[in-house]
Amino acid sequence: MSSKFGHRIQISVFGQSHSQAIGVVIDGLPAGERIDLDQVQAFMKRRAPGRHPYATPRKETDTPEILSGLFEGRTCGAPLCAVIHNTNAHSKDYSNLIKTPRPGHADYTAAIKYHGFQDYRGGGHFSGRLTAPLCFAGAVCMQILARKGIQIGAHILSIKQVRDLSFDAIHMTAKDLQAVTSKEFPTLDDEAGRKMQKLIEDVRLVQDSVGGVIEAAAVGLPVGLGEPMFDGLESHLASILYAIPAVKGLEFGNGFGATMLYGSENNDPFYYDENGMIKTKTNHHGGSLGGISSGMPLTLRVAFKPTPSISQEQQTVGLESGKNETVRVIGRHDPCIVPRAVPCVEAAVAVALLDLYEMK
Amino acid sequence: MSSKFGHRIQISVFGQSHSQAIGVVIDGLPAGERIDLDQVQAFMKRRAPGRHPYATPRKETDTPEILSGLFEGRTCGAPLCAVIHNTNAHSKDYSNLIKTPRPGHADYTAAIKYHGFQDYRGGGHFSGRLTAPLCFAGAVCMQILARKGIQIGAHILSIKQVRDLSFDAIHMTAKDLQAVTSKEFPTLDDEAGRKMQKLIEDVRLVQDSVGGVIEAAAVGLPVGLGEPMFDGLESHLASILYAIPAVKGLEFGNGFGATMLYGSENNDPFYYDENGMIKTKTNHHGGSLGGISSGMPLTLRVAFKPTPSISQEQQTVGLESGKNETVRVIGRHDPCIVPRAVPCVEAAVAVALLDLYEMK
Amino acid sequence: MSSKFGHRIQISVFGQSHSQAIGVVIDGLPAGERIDLDQVQAFMKRRAPGRHPYATPRKETDTPEILSGLFEGRTCGAPLCAVIHNTNAHSKDYSNLIKTPRPGHADYTAAIKYHGFQDYRGGGHFSGRLTAPLCFAGAVCMQILARKGIQIGAHILSIKQVRDLSFDAIHMTAKDLQAVTSKEFPTLDDEAGRKMQKLIEDVRLVQDSVGGVIEAAAVGLPVGLGEPMFDGLESHLASILYAIPAVKGLEFGNGFGATMLYGSENNDPFYYDENGMIKTKTNHHGGSLGGISSGMPLTLRVAFKPTPSISQEQQTVGLESGKNETVRVIGRHDPCIVPRAVPCVEAAVAVALLDLYEMK
Amino acid sequence: MSSKFGHRIQISVFGQSHSQAIGVVIDGLPAGERIDLDQVQAFMKRRAPGRHPYATPRKETDTPEILSGLFEGRTCGAPLCAVIHNTNAHSKDYSNLIKTPRPGHADYTAAIKYHGFQDYRGGGHFSGRLTAPLCFAGAVCMQILARKGIQIGAHILSIKQVRDLSFDAIHMTAKDLQAVTSKEFPTLDDEAGRKMQKLIEDVRLVQDSVGGVIEAAAVGLPVGLGEPMFDGLESHLASILYAIPAVKGLEFGNGFGATMLYGSENNDPFYYDENGMIKTKTNHHGGSLGGISSGMPLTLRVAFKPTPSISQEQQTVGLESGKNETVRVIGRHDPCIVPRAVPCVEAAVAVALLDLYEMK
Repeated sequence: MSSKFGHRIQISVFGQSHSQAIGVVIDGLPAGERIDLDQVQAFMKRRAPGRHPYATPRKETDTPEILSGLFEGRTCGAPLCAVIHNTNAHSKDYSNLIKTPRPGHADYTAAIKYHGFQDYRGGGHFSGRLTAPLCFAGAVCMQILARKGIQIGAHILSIKQVRDLSFDAIHMTAKDLQAVTSKEFPTLDDEAGRKMQKLIEDVRLVQDSVGGVIEAAAVGLPVGLGEPMFDGLESHLASILYAIPAVKGLEFGNGFGATMLYGSENNDPFYYDENGMIKTKTNHHGGSLGGISSGMPLTLRVAFKPTPSISQEQQTVGLESGKNETVRVIGRHDPCIVPRAVPCVEAAVAVALLDLYEMK
Repeated sequence: MSSKFGHRIQISVFGQSHSQAIGVVIDGLPAGERIDLDQVQAFMKRRAPGRHPYATPRKETDTPEILSGLFEGRTCGAPLCAVIHNTNAHSKDYSNLIKTPRPGHADYTAAIKYHGFQDYRGGGHFSGRLTAPLCFAGAVCMQILARKGIQIGAHILSIKQVRDLSFDAIHMTAKDLQAVTSKEFPTLDDEAGRKMQKLIEDVRLVQDSVGGVIEAAAVGLPVGLGEPMFDGLESHLASILYAIPAVKGLEFGNGFGATMLYGSENNDPFYYDENGMIKTKTNHHGGSLGGISSGMPLTLRVAFKPTPSISQEQQTVGLESGKNETVRVIGRHDPCIVPRAVPCVEAAVAVALLDLYEMK
Repeated sequence: MSSKFGHRIQISVFGQSHSQAIGVVIDGLPAGERIDLDQVQAFMKRRAPGRHPYATPRKETDTPEILSGLFEGRTCGAPLCAVIHNTNAHSKDYSNLIKTPRPGHADYTAAIKYHGFQDYRGGGHFSGRLTAPLCFAGAVCMQILARKGIQIGAHILSIKQVRDLSFDAIHMTAKDLQAVTSKEFPTLDDEAGRKMQKLIEDVRLVQDSVGGVIEAAAVGLPVGLGEPMFDGLESHLASILYAIPAVKGLEFGNGFGATMLYGSENNDPFYYDENGMIKTKTNHHGGSLGGISSGMPLTLRVAFKPTPSISQEQQTVGLESGKNETVRVIGRHDPCIVPRAVPCVEAAVAVALLDLYEMK
Repeated sequence: MSSKFGHRIQISVFGQSHSQAIGVVIDGLPAGERIDLDQVQAFMKRRAPGRHPYATPRKETDTPEILSGLFEGRTCGAPLCAVIHNTNAHSKDYSNLIKTPRPGHADYTAAIKYHGFQDYRGGGHFSGRLTAPLCFAGAVCMQILARKGIQIGAHILSIKQVRDLSFDAIHMTAKDLQAVTSKEFPTLDDEAGRKMQKLIEDVRLVQDSVGGVIEAAAVGLPVGLGEPMFDGLESHLASILYAIPAVKGLEFGNGFGATMLYGSENNDPFYYDENGMIKTKTNHHGGSLGGISSGMPLTLRVAFKPTPSISQEQQTVGLESGKNETVRVIGRHDPCIVPRAVPCVEAAVAVALLDLYEMK
């Protein structure tokens, strides 16, 4: 296990789906930063289940308790630890997960890696629930970044084949980002959003699931963030974004699309804007050149696979029986985790950016 | 700068395009591993320029000199340092790079980050030339991995719109990987390869450039590699792959394509094969579940943008003049770096996998 | 702040003297290790205050609560988090600590480093109380090491000028270590122990304090632990031992005493013992040669300064007044922290050794 | 092996006594720092052998070659790599070192750790020669620190029982430090220095060796350096100082001596000096309170054991024969490495302090 991320801002995430609590230690935060816990909680609510009709109706209170690191409402130089208590511990029998691993989950690989000693209840340390402490950390970092003029936001670019608009990678502003992230269902085009919700509801009814793409951006970044060769912007962001369960693809700027252009099209010409600031006319590079922020909006897209938990019967192996068997994932699960993953992506971006900011 | 990668196998890459030498220190290699330097050199030749008609005719000898870490042909527990001498130092005037930054390059972002003190000659530390020491490190790691039955290979999946076949993600073998990587132009379908070469030659003639996608795979991985939450397979591989210049996208398994499937389609059913081994019938997960290797082939695709160096006139800013200006990238550059990037991708995968192997 | 230690076994300590709780996250523990929590608690009691007449009568319950990482009594691969709730939060007025920093404490240096935002109550993150989570981590690591045949123990070598005997660095056994650590007042010679206790009581009556030296040892180490050049045995142990408040000196083997010998005296001759094992006739090297364990007992001595908290009037500065002032440390404090520091030293040694063991 | 040190300033030392070259990569240096290579070389000469009559007459040219990281005489943001070529490679038969390990050396422990594959020639990676790249790194860091007003210096406090004076821990200045380090034989009291040299010559004649204590100091440190809990000043300095071969003891401030004082004596009273600066009247704490610099001179003492290489016959084991045997260390070695270790201690202090400075 290596549940630590970061160099200057180090987060250490702990917990299992059914352990006493889950949480995070954040070390290296600059001292004296006021943290608005209501705002943190509001952010975390965007990830919480049970909020949407299309999401799992399970209730998770998800109220973080601050154990250390804040003094009179501000960071005090000591590591900040927050925990979220699990209230569902011991609630049900999960022993089938160790006998018949669920396709698309870590049940099988974890069983081998940890020699059968892994906490298999509810997915253990691999549960999507572990993104709650990540969101806590992200919410804290976001407040500090905001004071430096850096704003992060994300929206749902697609659910299966239903697509939202793309961010305007050149002109987008902090206001634009705030506008979309404050929506109940974060799409730029509400009509697209409605179609997505309809699609999710449809697959739920047939006990299936869908995935999608989240597009995120950050504006207000100073030029110079990123520590190449191995902690460049893309490298550092990728290593935390791929820690979010179900992420299988990631691209920056026009990403895979760049392979369809000529160099003369893909290169972004520099120019002085009316304020004498250096900008690029287009933003195919997505705000990063050589792994270093260019001052243009940082843009990225993250692909989430369909929720592997579906209640249809699936083929698997019996680890004890030594025979091929079938499994049904009982309980109610999100037919699409993408809407709840939007703040997780934002949080991951925030943690990585503040870390790079403090390394500058 | 953070030119170090890895936990157990740590590589530290140094050098600039026109410094005395470039090189790498590899720390943590297990002692007693025989390293075949001819084989290393043969691997590095795949990256070397001047080999193909469609690549830059510059000659780089690229012969690594071993300064330390080998004793009687084997690793000895001490860090292995190899250097490649630069023979082109001081050869020409690069001062325009600091005056008029090239679009698509790190000239501008590095100038700001390093306050004008960066070594701008030939792209400095950001030069594609720095992938030579990465290839050296990868070649060493690959020999050690091969003794553990792990084979890595890559091919060109596409150059602009011209596509090769995809790996057979389910049945591919070490032999298949060796077959394609031993080709002069590594595609599975030679006809596709010829079309790609024709396309590259065509864009060269019009002083333009193209990018493409490299598909890589590893077979023979034991179940259990990967250290979630933040050093899972995808995270660790991503952080080193995005360190290769020009990489803008990365996906594992069916990646972005997974967002187009239902969960019932995307989940890979487990089964016992005829030898009693646990496998999956399909391999949409690309060999990683929960960030841990599943024993199925690891598959990934890396998007490279078109070479930003083109000799067409481009718009840029004059950093000294404070005015908009134009720039032409003089000299001869690869109209497409994808063919030479194939071994770089393999090398990056090798370093990350050996590191995770030693962490297991 | 950098409250993280270790490479393979990583501990992350959090909390302040008066925060909601203090605790530790331990990442990287091998899965499947049974942890006896009663034994952990018994170990922690050796550090707890209020146990001895010569120690502070404050009561700290110090019962660790396990939030994550254990499943059915065993480590499960996920990070282990334990917290100890602070029950004394908000109990008294500590604002004088920020106005008139106590000599010998971190009040002044922390105030400058954290720009006045540090949690000054009870010493904040610098409180000796933060050694409680260190002891928790050490107790866990010790149980795992014991299964590998490695035993750690320490005793009080001196309190001011009163000296105990030294360990027999050549013949000491696990039994010897267990014998001394199970004593109420851990000295080899009980008469020396009584004199030390008398001395401590005497200085308490005159509102003063004393320090002393703790000698620690580990037996049963395999040959080969230690990762030179910078994570050799001495380096790694030193970096965690110096994290214990009040430590000002550390030596290995005969340490400073080695400077008084000729090389011909100090070199330890190798020989084959009756079982064909390679040993040294003397053990001036203290079990480490070139930063790597030799198989002989590891021995070290740690110097603790006198408790800086004394209720005598002391000269200091008024940070707000800008004038010289005086301060009295109110409350009751240990006139000597050495007895309670014995398990802290053992714990630090255990964490560092398990980390090096897992790196081997 | 873990031959890397540091967080922001990372050094990676490589090489063996008889490999092609030894060297160091320094990553993270701030860009734009002018490095005076003559000054670096002058510093390294203080460590070089053959300079003193009492030192080994072997000639090592020890001229560092800069491979990367400097551009027009300044750091450029890219890692700085310097190598020192070994000219003595293959010169003699060292195979006895693997057959009969030298007492007091790492021959035996390295043989076990690296399964017999270690480079045993001349001590391999454990050779004192590896302190040459450390000195290079220290010399570079020292120039950068000097521009921040920080000066480091060390002197020989004792050789066996012959003692020099101690630094005036309260009033010492940069000038004082420069004065002693510019001496041929660095002692404060030249008469003591002459006695030490006489003693070293005497032991040389009887084929024996002696050790001693080096006292080092740094002045001009700002308040606030050090990252507790595990990267406090003492922890960080200790982990690099113990990487110097032959170091067996280390104390800060009055160190072990603090255990002989009452708290009322050992606590250093704060006061405002005539310039309104906060200082302490005494400096028993050695410039560090709670692992954070206090602005008072940083003082530390490092104990070096007698050179283990002596040409007297010594008892050892035959690793191949399986019998007790004897060994004589042929060749000429320093009867006392302390004089040459003085700049090594300074260099280690410089690297650690610059790292902490950049972390502030």
